[in-house]
Amino acid sequence: MSGSGALAWPTGFKAYTGHGGLRDHGDDISVVASDRPATSTAMFTRSLFAGPAVVLSRTHAAGRCLRAVTTVAQNANVATGRRGEENAAEVVGRVAGMLGIPPEEVLIGSTGVIGRPLPMDTIRTHFDAAAERGPAAFTAEPLDVARAMMTTDTRPKTAVRTVGRARLVGVAKGVGMLEPDMATMLAYVFTDADVSPADLDRAFRHAVDHTFNCLSVDTDTSTSDTVAVIANGAAGPVDTDLFSEALADLCLDLTRQLAGDGEGATKLLRVTVGRAADREQARRVAKSVLNSPLVKTAVHGADPNWGRVLMAIGKNTDDTRIAPDKVTVRFGDTEVYPGEPEEHTLSELAEVMRRDEVDIVVTLGLGEAEATVYGCDLSAGYIRVNADYTT
Amino acid sequence: MSGSGALAWPTGFKAYTGHGGLRDHGDDISVVASDRPATSTAMFTRSLFAGPAVVLSRTHAAGRCLRAVTTVAQNANVATGRRGEENAAEVVGRVAGMLGIPPEEVLIGSTGVIGRPLPMDTIRTHFDAAAERGPAAFTAEPLDVARAMMTTDTRPKTAVRTVGRARLVGVAKGVGMLEPDMATMLAYVFTDADVSPADLDRAFRHAVDHTFNCLSVDTDTSTSDTVAVIANGAAGPVDTDLFSEALADLCLDLTRQLAGDGEGATKLLRVTVGRAADREQARRVAKSVLNSPLVKTAVHGADPNWGRVLMAIGKNTDDTRIAPDKVTVRFGDTEVYPGEPEEHTLSELAEVMRRDEVDIVVTLGLGEAEATVYGCDLSAGYIRVNADYTT
Repeated sequence: MSGSGALAWPTGFKAYTGHGGLRDHGDDISVVASDRPATSTAMFTRSLFAGPAVVLSRTHAAGRCLRAVTTVAQNANVATGRRGEENAAEVVGRVAGMLGIPPEEVLIGSTGVIGRPLPMDTIRTHFDAAAERGPAAFTAEPLDVARAMMTTDTRPKTAVRTVGRARLVGVAKGVGMLEPDMATMLAYVFTDADVSPADLDRAFRHAVDHTFNCLSVDTDTSTSDTVAVIANGAAGPVDTDLFSEALADLCLDLTRQLAGDGEGATKLLRVTVGRAADREQARRVAKSVLNSPLVKTAVHGADPNWGRVLMAIGKNTDDTRIAPDKVTVRFGDTEVYPGEPEEHTLSELAEVMRRDEVDIVVTLGLGEAEATVYGCDLSAGYIRVNADYTT
Repeated sequence: MSGSGALAWPTGFKAYTGHGGLRDHGDDISVVASDRPATSTAMFTRSLFAGPAVVLSRTHAAGRCLRAVTTVAQNANVATGRRGEENAAEVVGRVAGMLGIPPEEVLIGSTGVIGRPLPMDTIRTHFDAAAERGPAAFTAEPLDVARAMMTTDTRPKTAVRTVGRARLVGVAKGVGMLEPDMATMLAYVFTDADVSPADLDRAFRHAVDHTFNCLSVDTDTSTSDTVAVIANGAAGPVDTDLFSEALADLCLDLTRQLAGDGEGATKLLRVTVGRAADREQARRVAKSVLNSPLVKTAVHGADPNWGRVLMAIGKNTDDTRIAPDKVTVRFGDTEVYPGEPEEHTLSELAEVMRRDEVDIVVTLGLGEAEATVYGCDLSAGYIRVNADYTT
């Protein structure tokens, strides 16, 4: 159905990265573009304080024919007033100029500090130089783009899948303010598959619902979350179901990378709630376990503290369908509630808790619905990153 | 209206503390009792996994004539099955026996580890010895009781107020799993005021709504939260309004102590949301700021990162009444949004952030309602306490 390919763009895509002076060292501006018209779908943060990049991109995305994505790292350009709006529009205009396409076909993503104007002087200088180089500037690979998008990420995030002759390449960045309904996350997928706008939209919504929307690092919702997929059709038609599976699988891959690289994370935490009355209940209960600071610190300390898992389930005080005597809790494959683990399984349990990926599995005994959510442990590293990250 | 008195029990109350073997050193069992019939009101956790102590106490509290409160520290006696229920009932029975009152007049509070049976052998030995000493065993002062109630608290919490000839004495313990609708909190108030059951109930509900229910340390809801007030009338009647004010003031005092001693806390964080459409909105927005890990870490780092405050307000994605252009944010007295602080106020701002109590004040520009909530910063100490606190 789908496998990994090499780390290059799908047919008809090209990319550029450059240094716009947003950080001291390294590329901080990137552009990925299709050389032909394309079909697109995008989703954005629901934050009431969505930034100008999101507001502008929402308008452009509505046309369903985005061809290019540009990302400005380190600065969210949020709560920057009228000037912020003008600056976002200017960046988009310059990217459109570089590519010779209408601004309405460009999506812009920004993450980073809130409330500080973009350094337009250095950004203009950078774009002037890039424009002079012309098409020759478009030599960046997916890994270069993923790296140029990073803020407090410790590693770049990319993923590749193939469907028939078509390829899907994803790039993403995390890593704090991750929750709910996406995250401080930018994730873009580029594909040369020929997919109808309706099929692309349906496939992407399904994928995002089961992956990025099941990710939570710290319950904080970003003002900048953006995910988008662009399909340019260069590789011809594909089987719609296989494409949908590959897209979901790629998004899951990126989601796991984002969760495992949450700020200060030392391990991936995966919580599955099964036998729920409906998927909404499963996801809500799973997230209350995933987001509990006491569960997260227990996982960090490799402590199979199932009492905290019960506590986090019990927090859903308005959901009286949940009955303690129907609930079961497992760490990995070991049931810890209600059956107390045998003496000989305690060492297995300790081993499960020390893994890089910890699974907590809860069943509610109410129905057949299930949901899995992704996050990470809570460590002193999170405090370090966020108490020192300054405005 | 009310002032501080000396740290002794109100007329007609006496207390006992002893070592029941729940921790290695120090008293871990306490009893506070009125020597005459009393009127009472109590409130409990809404957790779906409320422990046997809460379940039993809820029944007893319904009679509105509690005369005694016993607390077992270090062990929540939660998720301990039928045996847990029997053990809670036995402790209550033994306390009632010591006092020569019906078990239905005793409230029991337990906090600590979940899922581990009470060490009934050592507890029985302890109660046998106490019973032998009889009334002579009741020599404990409020501070002794507050100390015997502690788990990860770093200091005992007591408060005193007077109304006319009557006194109110409160004892409380925190300090993790604090949220919402109370906390892993036990807080008891004893008074010799003569108050009708209806007035006592009304005054206490009002007080709890504005104090303990506005407290949040980590969004985790305990299975054991209990607050209660017992009034034995020994000091005669009091002005109802003054009593109500004194009770609320005492509860606020305890709430601030609990917030300031949150696990790993280095400072008290107080968030006020004003000019809200209604009190429910004010409290919900205030809590989303108070509970944001990114706001809490910024406060820990003494960083006036108002972008994170905006982000946390913007998380209330379903509340479309909130409009970014109507919102203002202050740290202490300094407005940081939308008016950018002047250069000369930046040092004042830094000083505000370094205080032991940090105030964040938000206005929504929608109405006249206001709410203040209490919590603390998020430090590496929280991680240390909770990653090491073992099952």
